[in-house]
Parts: sequence; C-alpha cells; structure tokens
Amino acid sequence: MTAARCRATSQVRPEVMDFSPYSAGLSIDEIKERYGLDTVVKLASNENPLGASPLVQQVIRSHAGHVFRYAQSGNPRLARSIAAFFGLPAECVVTGNGSDEVIDLLIRAKARPGTDNIVAFDPCFSMYTVLARLCGVELRQTPLNADFSFNWDALVGLTDENTAIVFVTTPDNPSGYTPPVEEIVTLAGRLPEQCLLVVDEAYMDFTGDRDAYSMLPRLMQHPNVCVLRTFSKSMGLAGLRLGFGAMQPELADYLKRIRPPFSVNILAEHAGMAAMEDTVFYNETLRVTAEGREYLNRELAALGCTVYPSRANFIMFQAPIDGGELHEQLLRRGIILRPLNKGYGLPRHMRVSVGSRQENSAFIGAFREIMHAR
Amino acid sequence: MTAARCRATSQVRPEVMDFSPYSAGLSIDEIKERYGLDTVVKLASNENPLGASPLVQQVIRSHAGHVFRYAQSGNPRLARSIAAFFGLPAECVVTGNGSDEVIDLLIRAKARPGTDNIVAFDPCFSMYTVLARLCGVELRQTPLNADFSFNWDALVGLTDENTAIVFVTTPDNPSGYTPPVEEIVTLAGRLPEQCLLVVDEAYMDFTGDRDAYSMLPRLMQHPNVCVLRTFSKSMGLAGLRLGFGAMQPELADYLKRIRPPFSVNILAEHAGMAAMEDTVFYNETLRVTAEGREYLNRELAALGCTVYPSRANFIMFQAPIDGGELHEQLLRRGIILRPLNKGYGLPRHMRVSVGSRQENSAFIGAFREIMHAR
Repeated sequence: MTAARCRATSQVRPEVMDFSPYSAGLSIDEIKERYGLDTVVKLASNENPLGASPLVQQVIRSHAGHVFRYAQSGNPRLARSIAAFFGLPAECVVTGNGSDEVIDLLIRAKARPGTDNIVAFDPCFSMYTVLARLCGVELRQTPLNADFSFNWDALVGLTDENTAIVFVTTPDNPSGYTPPVEEIVTLAGRLPEQCLLVVDEAYMDFTGDRDAYSMLPRLMQHPNVCVLRTFSKSMGLAGLRLGFGAMQPELADYLKRIRPPFSVNILAEHAGMAAMEDTVFYNETLRVTAEGREYLNRELAALGCTVYPSRANFIMFQAPIDGGELHEQLLRRGIILRPLNKGYGLPRHMRVSVGSRQENSAFIGAFREIMHAR
Repeated sequence: MTAARCRATSQVRPEVMDFSPYSAGLSIDEIKERYGLDTVVKLASNENPLGASPLVQQVIRSHAGHVFRYAQSGNPRLARSIAAFFGLPAECVVTGNGSDEVIDLLIRAKARPGTDNIVAFDPCFSMYTVLARLCGVELRQTPLNADFSFNWDALVGLTDENTAIVFVTTPDNPSGYTPPVEEIVTLAGRLPEQCLLVVDEAYMDFTGDRDAYSMLPRLMQHPNVCVLRTFSKSMGLAGLRLGFGAMQPELADYLKRIRPPFSVNILAEHAGMAAMEDTVFYNETLRVTAEGREYLNRELAALGCTVYPSRANFIMFQAPIDGGELHEQLLRRGIILRPLNKGYGLPRHMRVSVGSRQENSAFIGAFREIMHAR
C-alpha cells in the first residue's frame, strides 16, 4: 500500500470527517447473551405494541416469490392508495425508503450548499442534523422551552431570506409535546416566502385527534407546508421502511425527479397497502396505545417520576434515581428503554415506548423492584 | 394561494430544475391490459431467470411477523455474512438500499460540490449521471469505442487533481463488454492519487470466471479501488433492494458514519443471508443464464441481428429492422425488451435479458414471427 494510493480512500469531504464514528447498537440477541436472559422487552424504538398486522403478514407471505422483480419505479400504485387513505390528491404524495429518505430529498431539492440554511428546535430528530450537515447546509437551532414546549418566536427569529426549510416535529420526540394545530398554521404564515415548513407527523395517529393537531387535512390551504408521515409506528412496518411526504404537486414533482427509481422495496409497497386496509389492526393499535399510555402515566407518577404529558406512543420521564443507573438496572432485568443522555443531551431523562399490556406491566414491575431494592 | 407562499414549493436548487420530469414505466398488468394479453414475458430489467430462491422465500415467510421491528442499525450481521461469502474482512463491507445507495454515499463522501469532478464512460449507468448532478459535482464522460470496448487513455485523460471518483462498470451495461481484469489493475495504477476507482460488478457472477474479470479478490492489493456488488441479479432480490460496496476499512467507516441508520430493510437482511446460503439456486441461476445466453446468441444471429458478445445476463443486439418497430411488435406479442434509444442514445440497439428457457424461446418465436410477417 503506497502513500499515494491511500489518499484515494482517506481523503473525504471536510464535512464528512466531522461525523461521529459509527457504532452499531446491541441486538436483542446480544442483550440476552450479555445479561443471561431468556426474554427481553424492548420499549426503546416506539415500534408497534401489537407487532405486524395479520393482513400485512399474509400479504408478505403471498408475495415472497415476487422479490426477484423490481417494483414499478416510483411506486405509483402505492402512492395512489396512500392518497386515497389520507384524503389527498395522488400527485401530492412522494413515497420514500422511510421518511428519512423524504427528508433527504427535501433538503437536496431545496437547500443550496454553502448558501442556504435550515431551522429546527434543539433537540430535534437526528436526521435533520445529520442530513443538513451531509448536504453542506447550515443548521440553525433554538432550544425548546424548559417544559419542552415550542418557542415559536425564537424559531421564526432564526429564519432569513436564505432559510430553505423549517422542520417541526409534532407530536415531538422525545417529549411527546404536541402543539395545537392553530399554532402551526400561524407559524406557516410567519415564515419568509421562499421557506418551506416541513411538519413531521410520525406520531400523529396516536393523538387520536387529527382535527386538533394535524396539518395533513389542512395541507391544500397552506402551500408552503409539507407533511411527513411514516408507516413505522401506527402501521407496524418499521423494519420494511416506508414513509411519505405530502406537499404541493410542483414540489412533489421535483422530488420524484431526483429520487432514485427503486428506493421503496416491493414488499414495503404491498405491505403498506395491506396496512392501510387492515383498519381493525390499526384501530386496535390506537386503542392499546392510548390505554397503555394512561397506565404508564399513572404508574410512573406513583413511582415518583416527573412524567411529561405525551400524545404519542412513548412517554418521557425523569426518574427519582440516576438515569444511567436505572437504564442499567432495567437492562439486567431484560427491559430496554431509551436513555436520553447521548442523542438528546438530557442526562436525567428517559423515554419509554408504550408497549403491549404485558410489556408495560413487566417494565413497571421491574422499575418497582429496582426502587424497593434501594 | 398567495404568490408569496408559492415560492416555498416552486423554488428549488438550480441543479434540480434540470432533471427530467418523472414518468413511471408501465407495469406488467398495465401492458396486459393495453394489449389484451394473458401472459407477458419481461426480459427488460435483467432480473433472475429462475425467480427468487426457495430458501429466500421460506425465510421471508418465516420473518413476515418481524417487520414491525427496526433492523439492527447498519445490519452488522448481514455485513459479516457478506464478508464471509465473498472472502473479505468484515470491516470492508458497506451495505446499502441497493448499490444505488452505495453510489450515492461514495459521491457524497468523496466529492466536493462545485470543486471536484467524476469521470465515467458515455453511455454509463444512469445513477452515476443523476447522482453526480444532484450532488452538484461535474461529470466528465468519454465515449465508448465503436465496438463498445473501453478507451482507457481517454478515460485517464479526463482525470485531474480534482477527480474524486472514476466509475467503471464491468461487465458493462448495456453492451455486456467485459475487459480482462489486468486492464482494470493497470487503470488503478494510472489514476491521480486522490482519485477512487469504483468498479461496479453488478453482473460479474455471470462471467463465470472471477479470476479473469473481477477486482473483488484483488481488492486488498489495490487500496484506491472500491468494488460494488448487488443482490438484484444473480441472487434474485431486485425488489428487496440490497447491494454493497467493498473498500478499504477507513473509507468504509466514513460511509457508515454518513449512512442513514435503517436504510436496508429487515427482510432484505434476512433474504440476503438466505440467498448466499442457497448455493444450489445460485449455481443453477448461473448455469441457466450461460445456457440461455448461448441460445440467444445463436438464434439472434440466425435472425440477422448484429449480436455483441456479452458475459452478463443480457445481450445487446442490433436488429435488421427498426428498433422502435421491433419493440412495439414484441410488446403486442407480450414480450418486453429494453430499447436503447432513450437512456443510452442508441436508436437502433436493443437489450434482452437472458430469461428462462421458456421465456427465451417465446421471445425468439415472436421475433421470428415478426420477421416472417414482413
């Protein structure tokens, strides 16, 4: 290996050198092995508490023989189904390999590297941060209020004539805070004219009240707004990767031009359509989540935690003991939560996904045991 | 809709406005409907002639209930399996949502927008063109020789101190031309020191002779080389989206840092491992393809076509009649080929994928009928 040859692999863009080194998290199997556990309850990734819909599973099994074919470029059939299900014109829908891909496409379509900026709260979904940096676009952030609500004035104050996108997540992650939709409408009216407002509604279904919280039914009245949705949560398809953006047809057309032709896989396409069809499973998901959220709120408060009000399928809380210790003690008992020290800079906070009734009570039981042992 | 609001959706990066408007191709069902056909033989996308491996199908069915879980970030288990199967150190492997994603990651990691350039032949795989433009990076191209072989001097002549990547596809698409690997080795030695040589070996398995043609076994001796492979062709997983790049660990680490955490879906992960395990299916794919390629070569020549020698699972030919007319006449008979007028600027050439024995003879039968009807 000559010095000359090494430069080809070691020389990357300066922005890329700033990214944190990669480290894969432990799998459920690895956690079982490390702690000598038979079962593990994972309440760390806001996955569906009921698993995958029976209809989805059936459709996947019946299409297993078709995976040697490319899906139709751009998944037009899936886009039409999504449009019908969510009450949108089909030309407004852009599907992606998870909403991660739609976020990437939006930044790449709108933001000029080195010139434009993107605005978001701090903390925010890590993809906004990571993809802005990868695109060479400045990210401007303003802190959330102390109670994790949104300081709109501060957000608007960061925008200028080069702001390409403002990102807002509602319900917010990890706090679960959900502003009334009127506040988003007001925000849309206050932004510079070239600026797109992207409202990430990954957890919106769990609010149970789209009239009060969602921009999706109001999209056509607010042409500077784009709404993101995912099939990873209420639809139970996290592992298959499917999300979409809803936006004005002109912008949707640009995104479709730059999107790789086959980014959404063929089983995600079939499973996505099945998930929308299986309204029994979908409604049961919402019911179980609402019930479990209620239960966890009550029990966490009884255990002396500060619980933040959430309309999503997760709850943020601050335990009466050190967060790192609680995390470790729960892991030993086979319960995986999300500590918020690393990604979010909240050393004393934790996030628990609302699981099934059994999972929730296993978590509360273990938590109680830890508190009593002290 | 006020004029002010419209700018948010209509104003995109200048590069994005240059992209062609999106148009989805017809699905097999739409072609059946348009031409009143019961069956359609698709020999247009170089998919596996035997479909999906039985083991792959079984694994997909048995994991259908797991799609509500996120895959482990970065698919470390899959990367280890790929490394073992291809005889590589695990830290050299970067998986992607198809090799399309790895191409995107390579350009984003290496090429500075507005400063660096990328070099390839013309025509080349459309992703090189599209993604270079999307990244704001200049693409320099030199034409293939008249017989579709490679003019290495011209390629090297385009490189300079700002060339981030040279892309070479071998076997080449759509011609099937495959240079001896010694020529790639020589090329690697002639490039500027900062320049990465990306060798796209999507169709390499079909050559049946990796010693003579593939850079993959030589990767460790050539640190300025990255090899791309896909599971879409010989592995039969086109619809599931799985590809990988093999490269020096240092560059692999940079790509893993910037890659979205869940881009490869969980069924692609399981199916990919099953596809590598099912060596019976894999070997049968290679045998059927070699046999079908032989048959098509012979029959196309007998029909008066100019046939280009191919080591891939497709054949490029020039028909004795107009390509557009042949394409249309074949479609009416339920045979889909790839005309090369649009994407490749070759108005008189067509590409046919090697199908199953039945598909190949259905194609030749229809072609014969068209020629006799004249």
